[in-house]
Amino acid sequence: MLEDLKRQVYEANMLLPQYNLVTFTWGNVSGIDRETNLLVIKPSGVDYDTLSPEKMVVVDLDGNIVEGDLNPSSDTPTHCVLYKHFLNIRGIVHTHSPWAVAFAQAGLDIPAAGTTHADTFYGPIPVSRLMKAEEIIHEYEKQTGNVIVETFEKRRINPDQIPAVLVNDHGPFTWGKSAHEAVHNAVVLEEVAKMAYHSLQLNPHHIDIDQSLLDKHFLRKHGSNAYYGQKNMN
Amino acid sequence: MLEDLKRQVYEANMLLPQYNLVTFTWGNVSGIDRETNLLVIKPSGVDYDTLSPEKMVVVDLDGNIVEGDLNPSSDTPTHCVLYKHFLNIRGIVHTHSPWAVAFAQAGLDIPAAGTTHADTFYGPIPVSRLMKAEEIIHEYEKQTGNVIVETFEKRRINPDQIPAVLVNDHGPFTWGKSAHEAVHNAVVLEEVAKMAYHSLQLNPHHIDIDQSLLDKHFLRKHGSNAYYGQKNMN
Amino acid sequence: MLEDLKRQVYEANMLLPQYNLVTFTWGNVSGIDRETNLLVIKPSGVDYDTLSPEKMVVVDLDGNIVEGDLNPSSDTPTHCVLYKHFLNIRGIVHTHSPWAVAFAQAGLDIPAAGTTHADTFYGPIPVSRLMKAEEIIHEYEKQTGNVIVETFEKRRINPDQIPAVLVNDHGPFTWGKSAHEAVHNAVVLEEVAKMAYHSLQLNPHHIDIDQSLLDKHFLRKHGSNAYYGQKNMN
Amino acid sequence: MLEDLKRQVYEANMLLPQYNLVTFTWGNVSGIDRETNLLVIKPSGVDYDTLSPEKMVVVDLDGNIVEGDLNPSSDTPTHCVLYKHFLNIRGIVHTHSPWAVAFAQAGLDIPAAGTTHADTFYGPIPVSRLMKAEEIIHEYEKQTGNVIVETFEKRRINPDQIPAVLVNDHGPFTWGKSAHEAVHNAVVLEEVAKMAYHSLQLNPHHIDIDQSLLDKHFLRKHGSNAYYGQKNMN
Repeated sequence: MLEDLKRQVYEANMLLPQYNLVTFTWGNVSGIDRETNLLVIKPSGVDYDTLSPEKMVVVDLDGNIVEGDLNPSSDTPTHCVLYKHFLNIRGIVHTHSPWAVAFAQAGLDIPAAGTTHADTFYGPIPVSRLMKAEEIIHEYEKQTGNVIVETFEKRRINPDQIPAVLVNDHGPFTWGKSAHEAVHNAVVLEEVAKMAYHSLQLNPHHIDIDQSLLDKHFLRKHGSNAYYGQKNMN
Repeated sequence: MLEDLKRQVYEANMLLPQYNLVTFTWGNVSGIDRETNLLVIKPSGVDYDTLSPEKMVVVDLDGNIVEGDLNPSSDTPTHCVLYKHFLNIRGIVHTHSPWAVAFAQAGLDIPAAGTTHADTFYGPIPVSRLMKAEEIIHEYEKQTGNVIVETFEKRRINPDQIPAVLVNDHGPFTWGKSAHEAVHNAVVLEEVAKMAYHSLQLNPHHIDIDQSLLDKHFLRKHGSNAYYGQKNMN
Repeated sequence: MLEDLKRQVYEANMLLPQYNLVTFTWGNVSGIDRETNLLVIKPSGVDYDTLSPEKMVVVDLDGNIVEGDLNPSSDTPTHCVLYKHFLNIRGIVHTHSPWAVAFAQAGLDIPAAGTTHADTFYGPIPVSRLMKAEEIIHEYEKQTGNVIVETFEKRRINPDQIPAVLVNDHGPFTWGKSAHEAVHNAVVLEEVAKMAYHSLQLNPHHIDIDQSLLDKHFLRKHGSNAYYGQKNMN
Repeated sequence: MLEDLKRQVYEANMLLPQYNLVTFTWGNVSGIDRETNLLVIKPSGVDYDTLSPEKMVVVDLDGNIVEGDLNPSSDTPTHCVLYKHFLNIRGIVHTHSPWAVAFAQAGLDIPAAGTTHADTFYGPIPVSRLMKAEEIIHEYEKQTGNVIVETFEKRRINPDQIPAVLVNDHGPFTWGKSAHEAVHNAVVLEEVAKMAYHSLQLNPHHIDIDQSLLDKHFLRKHGSNAYYGQKNMN
């Protein structure tokens, strides 16, 4: 069942330790099959070096297990909410990568400080508001998804153009058109968080990129007029 | 004698360089057999790449050598005090891991700044008070243990819920239900120290997590209502 | 065609991941044959682990493809401008190495803070002015080259003595008498950026080196009176 | 000639890249035979991966080549001055290790901020005064040695108790009773520089260790009452 997607999601999970994005089991990747609306996701708390495609768990969009002997990631309800609201995405990554977490714990957006950022993210990476006690106590992981969606709606951010969020006092989620692209965006997120941190220490007041440079870099890689790379690639 | 425990303590010691927690011989792990009240601990000043299970030293709770040709770690009296007072623990780690040491040298607690912290530590990691000259001159390593115990008693901290301390101007000790769990907690400590440092530089005043989020993350991994991971796993 | 140069440029490109200067495909190296005025440059957006000398692209100084099946780096027009104006250089590197980018995003020169810097760079590494909207919209990559040249002309900097620049809100370009030397300078740039960052955090006001020490270190490695190294080397 | 010492000095040089203390050829180790007053030192500007014991250069205490086909390190006159004045040392290391350089460029001592420091260094690591233009122009490397010696004499520091210095705006020299011990001290220096940097960012005013704790840690590892490690070991 969904063998191809299981393999893709497995491989994407294995990229997390390879790119130094996780300590222990602090991360998970999922992918969705939009035809059947079934998700494939990492099992909860399983070490990366014992993972295999067969251990991936299949759940429906309400988080019910459809196939698999293990519990799915405890963050599964968050993934479900994002797939329900961000209709173009087919892969999601959650990590506790340390530079992104540093901003999340500080309650600050990652500013769009340069072209490295603009090549992937069309504006600042938003941090969500603090969650309320009742949201934390009841259906916490689902409410985490809801507060992410609220962040994008209230600030009128297009999740296809800024495929990442910082959950306040927690850490990043990224997404993309595939599980692999979501991992790519998680790597870029961590790199631009590190760069922005150091730029802010050097110059706390003036690190935001001009709109014209943001437009140029994002649009030369994304959309109908993109001209970076090879036509028959990516 | 205690061959199983020696192997466990040996393996836990070897995890310290693997997780980049030690330079040279700056760290040690012990484990205790609660039935016989005997400790197994790393020998003093021996390089990790020449260690073996047979070189582990067995001592009693007063630090007397029961078996072994080498001197035990010079920090053995500190381990003994902790085992005598923290009755649920069966493994202890001491390192000079650099992010934790940075807070210890600054004389500051590591604040509970996010969910990465809350998943393992149910509140700030306390820093002990400065030791007095007489405590340093006479039975220094034993007094180091005493000042740790005093820190937990005076601040009414449960060592099972916050299994780590920063000895002021020195460095961290962590513990757990096994030598291996103590190493796990030493890795988490170093990671959350790094994250908290950077969050404090970004936002010096507002990085403490809300109590409800602290409760949620600690309790979803610990205690009778934990739901993270697999039922048949740790 | 230009097989030797292709191999050199290929090898220089492969040094970028080896020295941890690039994430994904965020960097490129070119070399020029000054007799034919032909450039060899990395193809755009191609992963380093699939590169080979044969995949290098040959272009003329106006950026027209002379040989090769792949698109050249999107930064090719910047390389062309630099080769046209900096007549002694025969290799160029562009990366998004994170410490250099931190200064570029802060809009700050990298100060000449010590002898590590002075051994390679005869003064601060300049940051270019912000580009205007019209420069960004029309012939952006060529205008990037123009603003670099303007920086060196206006500030009367000799590009043979300071073989590096920070493009504002973007990142570094370095160059040299060969593609390999340009990579060498990119490595030094990243290292001195890291050192200067930390020195500035420790002492924001007094980190500039004295002119006599700058003279001594630059000139003991460069020019007719150099005495560092072996006569028959480098 | 001095084959044993050549091998020791070669091996000590090879530890520099292993401990990540050097970029390119930015470092050198020497050793001295106190019976013949001959130094063995790394050749100038030679890559570490092409070094061998036979390539080590033998010089006398005035820097004259006694044996060897290659030029000795350009820093040889500095080594000679240190051997002439610090009579108990038999090995010297010079690097541009980045955390130590950060303090050197800031013109600041590395404070004795914790027990990691005190285990090896019996007080702050001093930074030398800025050198005068005439010292830089004439016999620069020898004057570098003189200014180091002046630092220890004026501040009444015992070089056997604090076996390291930061040359202002330049970088560290360390020494010891052997080339290998000098490398050990270079590793510790870099580690305590990193720790002190971060402690200073967290708490700029109060990171100096108490004298009693400094005494305790230095003296439990050094001198006649040392009790750390094994009696039959270093």
